[in-house]
Amino acid sequence: MTRLDESTTERLMRHVDGSMALAQKLFDDLAERTADGGGVTRASYGEGEQLAHDMFAAMAREIGLEVSDDPAGNGYYTLPGKERQAPRVITGSHLDSVPKGGNFDGAAGVVAGLAAAAAIKDAGIVPPQDIAVMAVRSEECSSWFTGDHGGHLGSRAALGLMKPAELETAIHLGSGMPLGRQMKEFGLRPGQLFDRPPSLSRDTVKAYIELHIEQGPVLDAAELPVGVVTGIRGNARARAARCLGEYTHSGAVPQHQRHDAVLASAELLLALEADAQSVLDGGGDIVFAAGKFYTDADLHSLSKVPGEARFTLDIRSLDRQTLDRLSVHAASQAAAIGRRRGVRFELGAFSFSEPTAMHPAHTQCLRDGCRRLSIDAMDIASGGGHDAQEFERCGIPASMIFVRNANGSHNADESMEMEDFAKGTRLLAWMLAAAL
Amino acid sequence: MTRLDESTTERLMRHVDGSMALAQKLFDDLAERTADGGGVTRASYGEGEQLAHDMFAAMAREIGLEVSDDPAGNGYYTLPGKERQAPRVITGSHLDSVPKGGNFDGAAGVVAGLAAAAAIKDAGIVPPQDIAVMAVRSEECSSWFTGDHGGHLGSRAALGLMKPAELETAIHLGSGMPLGRQMKEFGLRPGQLFDRPPSLSRDTVKAYIELHIEQGPVLDAAELPVGVVTGIRGNARARAARCLGEYTHSGAVPQHQRHDAVLASAELLLALEADAQSVLDGGGDIVFAAGKFYTDADLHSLSKVPGEARFTLDIRSLDRQTLDRLSVHAASQAAAIGRRRGVRFELGAFSFSEPTAMHPAHTQCLRDGCRRLSIDAMDIASGGGHDAQEFERCGIPASMIFVRNANGSHNADESMEMEDFAKGTRLLAWMLAAAL
Repeated sequence: MTRLDESTTERLMRHVDGSMALAQKLFDDLAERTADGGGVTRASYGEGEQLAHDMFAAMAREIGLEVSDDPAGNGYYTLPGKERQAPRVITGSHLDSVPKGGNFDGAAGVVAGLAAAAAIKDAGIVPPQDIAVMAVRSEECSSWFTGDHGGHLGSRAALGLMKPAELETAIHLGSGMPLGRQMKEFGLRPGQLFDRPPSLSRDTVKAYIELHIEQGPVLDAAELPVGVVTGIRGNARARAARCLGEYTHSGAVPQHQRHDAVLASAELLLALEADAQSVLDGGGDIVFAAGKFYTDADLHSLSKVPGEARFTLDIRSLDRQTLDRLSVHAASQAAAIGRRRGVRFELGAFSFSEPTAMHPAHTQCLRDGCRRLSIDAMDIASGGGHDAQEFERCGIPASMIFVRNANGSHNADESMEMEDFAKGTRLLAWMLAAAL
Repeated sequence: MTRLDESTTERLMRHVDGSMALAQKLFDDLAERTADGGGVTRASYGEGEQLAHDMFAAMAREIGLEVSDDPAGNGYYTLPGKERQAPRVITGSHLDSVPKGGNFDGAAGVVAGLAAAAAIKDAGIVPPQDIAVMAVRSEECSSWFTGDHGGHLGSRAALGLMKPAELETAIHLGSGMPLGRQMKEFGLRPGQLFDRPPSLSRDTVKAYIELHIEQGPVLDAAELPVGVVTGIRGNARARAARCLGEYTHSGAVPQHQRHDAVLASAELLLALEADAQSVLDGGGDIVFAAGKFYTDADLHSLSKVPGEARFTLDIRSLDRQTLDRLSVHAASQAAAIGRRRGVRFELGAFSFSEPTAMHPAHTQCLRDGCRRLSIDAMDIASGGGHDAQEFERCGIPASMIFVRNANGSHNADESMEMEDFAKGTRLLAWMLAAAL
């Protein structure tokens, strides 16, 4: 660990502020080149993501960082440290987006990493070990891949958490191809993923720190530019739930003889909402949504009782037991409603993502940094999953910085002020150069 | 009115039974030639409907009936009576179907008409006036046309109930063309619809009688082959309702700060279901469904709070006041839920179809016929709208015969036994030859 003196810290901060022009240019170019007529679309292991990786690698070279990748296509832009063999510090985030998403979710963390690395380099600070900015692949894979997979494909592949079967069972929604074949389309090397030690491990990585826009309205409501993340909510998800009733004439069948899949599903969703409310009333942590809900466009009609409804369920909490309880309750509610209404629910098996606490000591470093740099900040829980959780799970100390964002993420209206971003990047640069 | 003696009645019934081979062939050919890989699809003013009209006109010629049409393309297959100038009796139904519908909804009434006319002719009975079998166009137009129109396009055009504007404002879902242009595609004459008296009126039509499969499970549950229809439910419909919320991250936004369009819509639908139940509890008549319900396939995602939901509402009752009350209540419930959840409902203006009582004297004739012919039957309300209501509304005495149908209509599994159909056709032939 290096403790910087006050004048070096001030010099570093001036260089961070100076690198905001570079950051702005990266954001602008990225928005323009992955625009989809409204928001941006950067498909996981797809064209938009690849374009971003090519752009960022070129910028990293321009800054004077070493550029490399791993078999899964994650990019590493390295600022050499004094001891090149010592476990490195990694900062970064992902470059893909949800379909019709916003420009900052993910990309902000990689831009901040490049800006911080450029500032440290330009300030003449040589860190004790390498600092690598990591451009992670396929963090938004839940929006781009169907079938069986464990999520966060890029970071999990790098950390050795991916199972070989996922290369076959995760199916890209754009191309219909399995993950392994999809990777090869972009010149990547899935065949090398499982015949050697993982690219990243607790022996080779000293710490991971990720800057990300806040995906909710909490910092905005609190009027604070920066949040120090304490933990990441896990989730329980049903990706392809459906309710099977019976298509019948919407005028001729008495109400009590119907098997209406929409009304049955509506009852289930409101029951789950009530469950969530009772968790909140008890002081617990939970959010719940059915993001997709649709009758069959080929069979539904104004004048038919709907015989089928399909929907997704996304339940998230900082507490694993809450996830277990709610998902079990969803299944039992579905069975009870099904019996009463004469419909059959097929929720499928819930997939689970574990809640993850951020590394306490590094989180404390971030709080210290905010005080040293006079950045107004608060502790905050992360509602979304992040690559940081995969690092922490592998025993690599992980921490996260949130930057205020007015309109939520996963939509075209993400709105991050560059002033707030500069504060988050100052904290990141200080952490990389001074605290780790 | 002709009262047939017992031996003539018996002879007519034998000929009805004899014409069942012709009926079976028509059903089989129709099913085969309009099959869509599961059910049948006969688009209103589309290919499947046209094919059926061509087939039925050819069969009518074979039977020896006079074949003609009107500017809207309704087919008339006429058995000449003693007085050719006297107001004629019309029997019939429609030849179109809902998308992926069944073979009998509509077609059964035209097949029964042809079979009855053939039997009357073969029995050597000359009716006092012409009997015309009418093959009506576009009864299922609510499934095929969007935009502004008054429903039952074929019969309303023939009866002079259609407004000229409907030729422009009803848009065919298959071709995207307005009704007038769509009619011309099939060689019809929409230009003649409004420059002369309507094809059918109370001065030229003595009675209308329609045989139709029951569209619900009531006869099946009662184990009766035939129903005598007392009235037709009207409806109040919202064809393009939507709820506008806000797309946000499904993990990061606290539950109380969400504007979830799916949960809000689910609450509205269950409130309407509860309203309907309270009407039933009070002894009233009502059915309710939201046949279509869908989030936006371009914007929705497992990991987004849904910002929009679209749905249809179909409320039906024998009582107009119930329809008025329920549709007003739907709007006020939507407003209240919208305020509470921070979403906006746009239900649009409800379209109304009036409930219609069948002609009491003719309905009594049908009951008498059942007794004379030893057909087990019951009184029944029609849940679906039918062309018969348009005739009754124009002051033409209208009545309807329902035939038992096991699996509901508007689906591929419609199931009518030919034995039941024969009983319905016997009643129809008796009514045409003996009672009108």
